[in-house]
Parts: sequence; C-alpha cells; structure tokens
Amino acid sequence: MPEVKNADELFKDFKAQSVSEFFKKNAAMLGYTGKIRSLTTIVHEGITNALDACEEAGILPDLYVKIDELGQEHYKVTIEDNASGIPLVYIPQVFGRMLAGSKAHRNVQSRGQQGIGVSGAVMFSQVTTGKSTKVLTSTGNKYIFKGRVQLNVKQNVGEIVEKEKIQNKWKWTGTIISLEAKRVLYNKSRYSPFNYLRMTSIANPHARITFIEPDGTRIVFDRGTDIMPKPPQPIKPHPYGITPDDLITMSENSSKANLSQFLEKDFVRISSGKVAEIGRQSGISMKTSTKRLSWGDAEKIVNAFNNIKFFAPPTGGLCPIGGDEIRKGLETTLVPEFCYTITRPPQTYHGGILFIAEVGIAYGGNAGRQGIEIIRYANRAPLIFDQGGCGITEAIKSIDWKRYGIRDLEKVPLTIFINIVSTHVPYTSAGKQAIAYKEEIYNEIRNALMDGGRALSRHLAGKRRLYEKKSKMNTLLKYVPETAAALAHLTTGDKARIEEKLASIITEKYVVPEVEEEDE
Amino acid sequence: MPEVKNADELFKDFKAQSVSEFFKKNAAMLGYTGKIRSLTTIVHEGITNALDACEEAGILPDLYVKIDELGQEHYKVTIEDNASGIPLVYIPQVFGRMLAGSKAHRNVQSRGQQGIGVSGAVMFSQVTTGKSTKVLTSTGNKYIFKGRVQLNVKQNVGEIVEKEKIQNKWKWTGTIISLEAKRVLYNKSRYSPFNYLRMTSIANPHARITFIEPDGTRIVFDRGTDIMPKPPQPIKPHPYGITPDDLITMSENSSKANLSQFLEKDFVRISSGKVAEIGRQSGISMKTSTKRLSWGDAEKIVNAFNNIKFFAPPTGGLCPIGGDEIRKGLETTLVPEFCYTITRPPQTYHGGILFIAEVGIAYGGNAGRQGIEIIRYANRAPLIFDQGGCGITEAIKSIDWKRYGIRDLEKVPLTIFINIVSTHVPYTSAGKQAIAYKEEIYNEIRNALMDGGRALSRHLAGKRRLYEKKSKMNTLLKYVPETAAALAHLTTGDKARIEEKLASIITEKYVVPEVEEEDE
Repeated sequence: MPEVKNADELFKDFKAQSVSEFFKKNAAMLGYTGKIRSLTTIVHEGITNALDACEEAGILPDLYVKIDELGQEHYKVTIEDNASGIPLVYIPQVFGRMLAGSKAHRNVQSRGQQGIGVSGAVMFSQVTTGKSTKVLTSTGNKYIFKGRVQLNVKQNVGEIVEKEKIQNKWKWTGTIISLEAKRVLYNKSRYSPFNYLRMTSIANPHARITFIEPDGTRIVFDRGTDIMPKPPQPIKPHPYGITPDDLITMSENSSKANLSQFLEKDFVRISSGKVAEIGRQSGISMKTSTKRLSWGDAEKIVNAFNNIKFFAPPTGGLCPIGGDEIRKGLETTLVPEFCYTITRPPQTYHGGILFIAEVGIAYGGNAGRQGIEIIRYANRAPLIFDQGGCGITEAIKSIDWKRYGIRDLEKVPLTIFINIVSTHVPYTSAGKQAIAYKEEIYNEIRNALMDGGRALSRHLAGKRRLYEKKSKMNTLLKYVPETAAALAHLTTGDKARIEEKLASIITEKYVVPEVEEEDE
Repeated sequence: MPEVKNADELFKDFKAQSVSEFFKKNAAMLGYTGKIRSLTTIVHEGITNALDACEEAGILPDLYVKIDELGQEHYKVTIEDNASGIPLVYIPQVFGRMLAGSKAHRNVQSRGQQGIGVSGAVMFSQVTTGKSTKVLTSTGNKYIFKGRVQLNVKQNVGEIVEKEKIQNKWKWTGTIISLEAKRVLYNKSRYSPFNYLRMTSIANPHARITFIEPDGTRIVFDRGTDIMPKPPQPIKPHPYGITPDDLITMSENSSKANLSQFLEKDFVRISSGKVAEIGRQSGISMKTSTKRLSWGDAEKIVNAFNNIKFFAPPTGGLCPIGGDEIRKGLETTLVPEFCYTITRPPQTYHGGILFIAEVGIAYGGNAGRQGIEIIRYANRAPLIFDQGGCGITEAIKSIDWKRYGIRDLEKVPLTIFINIVSTHVPYTSAGKQAIAYKEEIYNEIRNALMDGGRALSRHLAGKRRLYEKKSKMNTLLKYVPETAAALAHLTTGDKARIEEKLASIITEKYVVPEVEEEDE
C-alpha cells in the first residue's frame, strides 16, 4: 500500500509560471510542431504582422521573404515590410513579450489579435539555436534602429541585447527581422512557406510578396490591384449577442457616467429612443452610474436587448475579400467549369462580435484533389494546418452533398473556399490554424454552402439534361438519311433538301444553349 | 486613398493583458465552446484535478459528481473528492489564478499539467452567471474551510469573497467545489459528462465515481479493483532527446556545482563512467561550472549524448493502464470476437520526455460504429473532443488497413483504444483534447497498430480458412450417403458403419480447432 501524503507536503512545490514559460513548454500550441510546420509558422507570424502593420498605416504592402539554408535542418528566415516601423520603446515588447500588443483590446479586424505570435517566433529561434533575433526598424525619422532582441522567458519580458543607430538617409520606414531556427525543414509541399505565401497572395491581391527560396529561386507574387482595400475600422459591439459579463466589463471601462450615455455611445445601433425602450423593458433606471451595474441589472438589460429590434450591424468596419475577387482567384488558379462565390451580410456571434462568412465553390477544371479540397482563411490569413479540427471543416462535412448531385465524394473535382472575417476570430488554439465551433458561424457557412450547392446542382442537372438531349438528337440524326430517302421517294422531292430540313428541325429542338440551362 | 498613419499614432494603444484576460477572450481554447462541450469541460477539469489529488496523496478515489438543472441552459455542477484537501493559503491560487500549480515544473505524470483548468472553470462560471465558486475543503485538521472564490481577471489573481470556519468533527479530508454555469446543456450523447465519466471509469478502475444526473438518476461507476495503482514518480530526464536549451536551463537551475555532478545527478542513466565518456567525446571539461554553460558547449554535449549508448529510460515512473486492464475493459464493454492489447516500452520524445503508448484493438461484437471507432486517452484522462485534429487520429489514419484484411473502412466493426502516458503530454491547445504531432509518439502508435493489425489479419485469415474448410467439408459430407451406399454394395459391408467412418474421416481432416488457427 503506498503511503498517504498530507496536503502540506503535496503543496510545497506549488508555484506560478510566466506565460512565456507556459508556451515554451507547450510550443505545439503555437504551431511549433513538426519540422516543416515550424518553419511555416515562423513565416506566418512574420507575414501576418507585416500585413497588419501595412494595413493599419494605410500603406500598400511590399513584402520580402528570404529563407537561407545554413546547415542540416538549420535555416534563417528574413522578413521585411514597408510599414510605418516600430517606435524604439516598443521594440522589446513587440518581439520579446507575450500577450502584449495593440490588437487584443480593440474591436478591429486584424490578422493578429493576441500579441503572442512574433514573440513566439523569437522564442522558438532562441530555444533551437541559442540566438537572439536581429531587428532593423525605422519610423522614418533620422535614425534606423539596428539591434538584437531576445525573450527573458522566466519574466516574460523582452530584452535588447545589442543595438546601434544608423543614419536614415533614405527616410526609410519599415521593419526587417531575421531569425535562425534549427530542427526545421524547407520543402514545397502544401504545408510549406511557399504555399503559405501563395495562399496569402490569393487573398491579399493588394500585396506584393517577393520570396527567395533556399536554392536562390526568386518568386514574385505580384499585386492584382494597386487599390488599397478600405482599412478595417474599429467597430463598437452590437447589442445582440452581448452577455451580462460583457456589459459589466464594458460599463466599468466606459468613460461615460451613466447607462444612458454608455449605451448610446459605446454600442452601434442604440439610439436615444432605443435607450428609453431598454429602460422601459428592463425596469432599470438609465441614470444608473456605469460603475454600479449589478449582475442582476445587467441580465435585465441583456434580456431587453434581445426583445428589441435593432438595425443589423454596419458593414463598413469589416474588410472581406469580396465575391468578385474570390471568383477571380479561383478562376485563375483552378479554371473550373462552374464557380459560385458569395460574401454574406455581417452577423454577430455570441458576445456581440461581428463577423462575415465568405464562400466560394469551384467545380471541374483543376478543382478538388482526391475529393473535396478545402481552402480556409481567417481575416485573409491562410489556415493550412489543423483542418480536421476546424469548425469550417465541420460545417462543410455537415452538408449532404448528394442532395446537390455530388455522388462520389472521394473523387469529386470540388474546391471550397472559405474566409471568415471578424473583429475577433474564435481560434481553437494560440497557433491560430483552426476556428472553434460557434453556432452562428457554422450556420452562416452552411447557408452559403447550401445556396452554392443549389446553383451547382442546377449546373450539373443542366449538364446531364444537355447530355441526354444530345444523345437523343444524335440518335434521331442517325435516321435522317434513311427517312429523307424514303420521304424523297414518296414525295418525289429533293433528298438532299429534305435531309437538311429534317436535320435542322431536330437540331433546333434538342440543342439548348448552356447559358439558358444554368439560369433555369 | 486612405491616409497614411505614422508609428507613434498606431502604437498609442499598445498594452499588455493578463493570461486570464487572454483566456477569457479566447475561452474556446480552454474547451468552452458549444453548450454541451462547455458543461463537459467543467466536469473534466474537476475530475482530473480530483483524480490527480487522490493519486498524489495515495488515496483510493471516491468521487461524487452532481449536476442540477436550475433553469433553461442553466446548471450547477458539484464535484467532491476524498483527497488530502487544499491548505488555506493556496485556495485563491488553485481556483483563481491561471498558470499556477504544482504540476508544471515536475517531471511527473499527471492529468493536469498547466495550472489553468480549474481556474478556467471558475472563470467560465463567473462570466456566464456573475457568481463566484463555492469551495469546501479540509486537510484533516480542526477546521473545514467553507467559502467562495472568484477570479480577478485583470490581475490574474484569485480572491476569496466569503469564508467561514466549520468544526471538522469528522476529521474529513477532501474538497468539494460547486459552480453554476449558463448557456450549457446536459444530454447523454457521446460528448456528455455522462460519457466522459464512463470513459474515465474504464481507464481508472481503482476509482469509484457516483454521478447524479439532473433528473435525479444515480449512476455508480464502481471500482474494478481495490488496489491503488503504483503512484507515478518524478522522473529525471533521459539524455536522449535533450536539446541544448534544455541542458542550459537545467544546469542553471541545478543545485550541483559542476557539469560532472550535474550530469550524473540530474539525469537518469548517466553514470560516472558515462560522464567521463561525455567529457572525452565533447572535449568540454566536466569541471565547468553549471552556471557557465555556453550554447556552443551545450551543443557539443548534446552531440555527445546522441553518440553514446545509454540504457533505456526506467519504466517505474510512468503509470500506464496495462494491457490486461485494457483488454478487460474492451471485452466487458464491446464483447469482441478478437482483442489485441499492448503496453509498449517507454520511449523519449524530443526534449528528453518519457512516454508510453498503449494500444488496444477490438474487432467484432459491439466494436466500431459506422467504421473505425477511436477511443483516446492521455494519462488516463479521456479525450472526447477534437478527434479530427489529434496526432493519435493521424497515426491511425496513416495505417493501410487493407493490408490487414480490413476491406470496407466505412462499415468495419473495429474499435481502437489508445492511451498516451507521459510526464508531459504535448497537447495542441490549453483545452487538452488533442495531442500534437510528435514523430516519436506517432511512430510508437503506428508500430503497435501494425503489430495488432498483423494479429487481426491472422485472425481474419483463420476465419476465412475455417469457413472455406467448412464449406468443403459440407460439400464432401453431402456425398457420404451415396458413396457409403455404393461401397456397401461393392463390399457387402454395413452401410451405416461405412457412412459413419467416412463422415468421421472427413470431419477430422477439415475441422481444425479455432485456437490453433490463431496461433499459426
């Protein structure tokens, strides 16, 4: 019988760890798992930060990525952007501190949202090579900062270990990071940095990405457009989907003195008229101080929210790719015989968080590979790992494709493109490669897929009918010469003319232009 | 053209958030996603903590779980254990602070390893109901603590909001927590608390779990054994798989003065003879101070590790379920016609971390449901979510089952049971429902599956041969009366006796006992 231990003995080892220690021990949660994936994760973190930085600054992204092979399973990744640079004081935090950033507490669509990603890459580099990360950055003033940063894992703070000032003769603004990693591997598979950049380019046609592979090959993913997309705007929460906890947290943080001002100013779609209605329905005085909102009162207000009609959230703040751009992308890369794309109207999911689902369906041509191919994005950033554990995949699998004329799921030439755009994407893990199940998002994807499925089904039915008609026509045409000969004999008419007439009657009756079929 | 913003403007919102704020915003990463899953996650966190606490204390677990329905999508979960209780000073940290615990920095197998789980449940309760969590606990001294705890999310600290001391007349030791949650749902599906507890019971036959469902039904998952499993022991890292970063971190934290003492005492399987060999091969003086190990020296020592033969890690520290127990569990629940189980020898994965893969394969009977059924565990805790994103699933899918006589994967009556036991399970997410891809773990699972597959294939081939022999025998037996009659006529012998003899010759030749077939 093992000895029984008492609590004091058991708790003597109790202690706290920093968030960096946690993610160092659990690097797989950040996407550092497997040699190929780890390298792609570094590129992913650098690129999402670079694109966010350009978009926030209103600058057309011109990005440069270079991967050098330094030894066996040993690479250097360099990423350069032309955004507005990083002010000196923030450098240690941006690159060396986890859960620090400018994106977590704003209701704005961006690829990054946690303040973990780039610090994670710096940590992975440090843990596999013992080296700090090289940074060059300038905000366009007199100097360029050139130095090296590292993570103090125990304290979760960033440290600058080397620095110098370079004269900025060119008024350059932007950031270059360069980091080494071991136990990683470069190849050109679906999970590679190459494919990651290719997919990024498809969903970000305003970006130019130059990529130098380890063997020196230079690939330019060029712009499809010179027009900067409208930058995403911070969006106040919509009353639908707000929880009592959200309401209390927001009211405590509000600069407004009472509920009336708070509700009208800190939400979208709540007018002064609606405030009065909320007051009536909830029985709570709208003069109550924002610092004194109790749980019970918050619940009553949330109940009132859900019983009142508000306008749908404004569409302006989010920045979807757009149906036309998705179609262009799919048609260029897959040359499908059928293509359906849609950008659904904005919705909110639980917590009052705005999102848009965009869906594309391509059939035929180069679409699909060994069954349905799924292309996933969140806020225009490609999701290439963890497909099996993603809510998007669940939604796609839940569709009964047979109803839409798709018979053999293992072989169908079908590609499905999904982009979820939101001020807060509900990822399943800090590695941000899969979206959690949220009823509202799930339903939006399903609705779009069913619409697309119906269009596809009409296309396939049209094709089938066309095929049947053509077979019938061909059969009938076969009898034309004989029939014409017989008729010519009976009527003593001209056999050739009769034959021509008969053929044209049959042809007219059975051939229907494809376009008409599709619109049926 | 949108205006171009400069860096100072963009960075004015830059700030840090606490780990609690992070997980509050990203509750899906902890498993709080979907109504049914959220409820199961609460039970999961409570039960894993309770089982760990009992095992550490060396007490046979007697757990009690009660779920009350308080309103629509509003439940109360109560979990009681008979472990050694929580000392007063640790209560706020255990229940209200994330990344605080006694498990993260010890090399010992336990279900919990992050110090997030129960605090996450307290937070989910707080966020959905505005209520703190009720706690009763005693370490067996004069008093029982009875009070309520909550999370201060911004600071990531726990707070006791109510407390009283109760006379502990019964010398009770243990802990009871009781928490409410909204937007959750109870049912009896595969993803329910019911199934979670059932699966827990299968892998923990030494535990008794009493469960009261919301409708009052009382279910006892009783003990299969009164023998307490040997408690897992802290295991020092093995030199294989250690990285330079691990080596530096360990040496900096070591109480030993020089490398020689450090290597011999802080690792398993490094004798003084091996230390000398490491010194020779690496060219590093083994008298070097542990506080002065450079990256380059650490790399040389790691290279030496990998060129030297060490004994395999000791098997004592980990606590697998065991092949016999797994077989018992599978046979009881599935009544299969074929069953294979194995506990593989311990291995290390990258980082020097010890693990054991346990695999069970059941065929026929109630095994499988609409194809291969997968039952996953990590350190005896059931993994019932995120199956698609799990490294275990990947390993199972990578097997070419056709090679083992399995033809129709959609319909095969096959259940595969996997338990991964380790001092540090590499989960993909803080919600701990899927294991990341690690080459070494993947290979161990595959090897076990292939062994099992070969046994299964022999069984199926035996069945087929048996079937063929029986058909042949039956065909031959059909001709016996006629042949016997002819022979009787020719030899003037007794027809009945000839018939009997002929039949027994055929039967002996063609019927082979099933046991022999399996051993072939």
